[in-house]
Amino acid sequence: MDLFLVIDILGTIAFAVSGALTAMKKRMDFFGIFIIAFVTSVGGGTLRDVLIDANVAWMRDLTFVYVIIGATILAIIFRKKLGYVRRSLFLFDTIGIALYTVVGVQKGIAADFPPLICIALGTMSACFGGVIRDILCNEIPVIFRKNIYATACIVGGAVYFLLLKTSLSSNFIIIIAGSVVITIRLFAVTFNWSLPSIYGKQDAES
Amino acid sequence: MDLFLVIDILGTIAFAVSGALTAMKKRMDFFGIFIIAFVTSVGGGTLRDVLIDANVAWMRDLTFVYVIIGATILAIIFRKKLGYVRRSLFLFDTIGIALYTVVGVQKGIAADFPPLICIALGTMSACFGGVIRDILCNEIPVIFRKNIYATACIVGGAVYFLLLKTSLSSNFIIIIAGSVVITIRLFAVTFNWSLPSIYGKQDAES
Amino acid sequence: MDLFLVIDILGTIAFAVSGALTAMKKRMDFFGIFIIAFVTSVGGGTLRDVLIDANVAWMRDLTFVYVIIGATILAIIFRKKLGYVRRSLFLFDTIGIALYTVVGVQKGIAADFPPLICIALGTMSACFGGVIRDILCNEIPVIFRKNIYATACIVGGAVYFLLLKTSLSSNFIIIIAGSVVITIRLFAVTFNWSLPSIYGKQDAES
Repeated sequence: MDLFLVIDILGTIAFAVSGALTAMKKRMDFFGIFIIAFVTSVGGGTLRDVLIDANVAWMRDLTFVYVIIGATILAIIFRKKLGYVRRSLFLFDTIGIALYTVVGVQKGIAADFPPLICIALGTMSACFGGVIRDILCNEIPVIFRKNIYATACIVGGAVYFLLLKTSLSSNFIIIIAGSVVITIRLFAVTFNWSLPSIYGKQDAES
Repeated sequence: MDLFLVIDILGTIAFAVSGALTAMKKRMDFFGIFIIAFVTSVGGGTLRDVLIDANVAWMRDLTFVYVIIGATILAIIFRKKLGYVRRSLFLFDTIGIALYTVVGVQKGIAADFPPLICIALGTMSACFGGVIRDILCNEIPVIFRKNIYATACIVGGAVYFLLLKTSLSSNFIIIIAGSVVITIRLFAVTFNWSLPSIYGKQDAES
Repeated sequence: MDLFLVIDILGTIAFAVSGALTAMKKRMDFFGIFIIAFVTSVGGGTLRDVLIDANVAWMRDLTFVYVIIGATILAIIFRKKLGYVRRSLFLFDTIGIALYTVVGVQKGIAADFPPLICIALGTMSACFGGVIRDILCNEIPVIFRKNIYATACIVGGAVYFLLLKTSLSSNFIIIIAGSVVITIRLFAVTFNWSLPSIYGKQDAES
């Protein structure tokens, strides 16, 4: 359990830093940077909780609020050196979406939603913070153009349900499903995978 | 009742295809196209359900999820031939907003909201999927510029309430209110109606 | 209590007019102008109520719906003369955010959220209507770039909590916290304050 909390916090940090970097690119001020970091971290889970009518976690437990405030301040101070830690950030971020996916799927199962919706809730938890970030920054969400990110979550969520039919222990299922998300994402980025394009070659530049 | 379900499904297909077409214009990938088709179809109803604190329908009953997945796949496969069916799509879409309006008004009445709010909920059900679609595609919502679409829903909702004071049967009221929405929209598109502009002529080009 | 209602209505008018002006700049039609005026006024409070799972106030009590409709119509009719009343509007708007902040903080306290979250809820009530307005108008929210607006709410909310530890009467605390918001905002605008920039001077023009 403790391990999961550590991963969760590392994922939150990675998301917050990614949000802060996007906001600084748009030359926002402190407040804007913090808000963007915040919604990138907790936006997906918040949307999930509103849709399933659950309590919004960060409103009762301030741990993540403090983590995000700290990460944002560090991101602002070290904004010129973040290139050096980009690799670690990417790793945290990848582990973070794996964990967020599993947490979202589990929340869906706990509230007794059908498997397809649980997978959607897991994907939403992991990916929609970034969607809200992009909307607030007045961009078309990057995830709608390069979806291996979301595909990894969908496949990981599906694996979770397949394994539920086996006799594997709950922790083991979480680890396998999470590893699937991480593996797909790492392979996708390493080999520059993307979904087969439905558009012709003449559009390759767009 | 069966007839209403058929209309609902046809409307959902029309909305999903309209969303998919918009997403393809923005050159999104599979995932992006599906998400845009999805929010165009169910976004208005979802916002309504969150505001009135009701259960979000598509999260419990997967019928519409499957319909949207199917419609999106067909829209992608036949994207070059959709021009030929545009007329049917427009018809489904128009019938769809009529039905969505009535459903929204009825949900408002069931939850005991004042008539003005029920009409707003009906209009929201019919129109705000398109608003969310346009936000996600980084456009100013088209409905804020050409509002006959929304006006048709508002008038239809108002007619619904007027008829409630008569002794007409419930089904009959639904059919009349829905027909009002359809008629206004068909006339508006046929004769290129729009609300009287508040801006001067020199701005006609903008 | 009556005084608070009057202030609330004046604040609502100021927000609605500010929304209507933004929408008219984007050349929206009647419907678009009204929707933007509406979300500018009630969007922040609605988001707050959805997050804390409270009833959305304007859906049960139509007072503010009527006020917004009236203010929008007047803003459209007198759109060319609004320059003359800009100063009064600014005053109403400033008083409005002070009141919205206090109301948001109080709603958070009533639902037993931690102080930090209550302050966030107050700031959200006062500021996020404008954020939604800017998203719908396809702009980067102005508040993310010039945040004295939000800072005033945050400081006012913090003062509210500090004073709760004293023996001051509830009304007195409200008035002091509200005055802090108003004072900071008036000073900020008068002396053109902004948060210290984290960006270098070469970027001053952006």
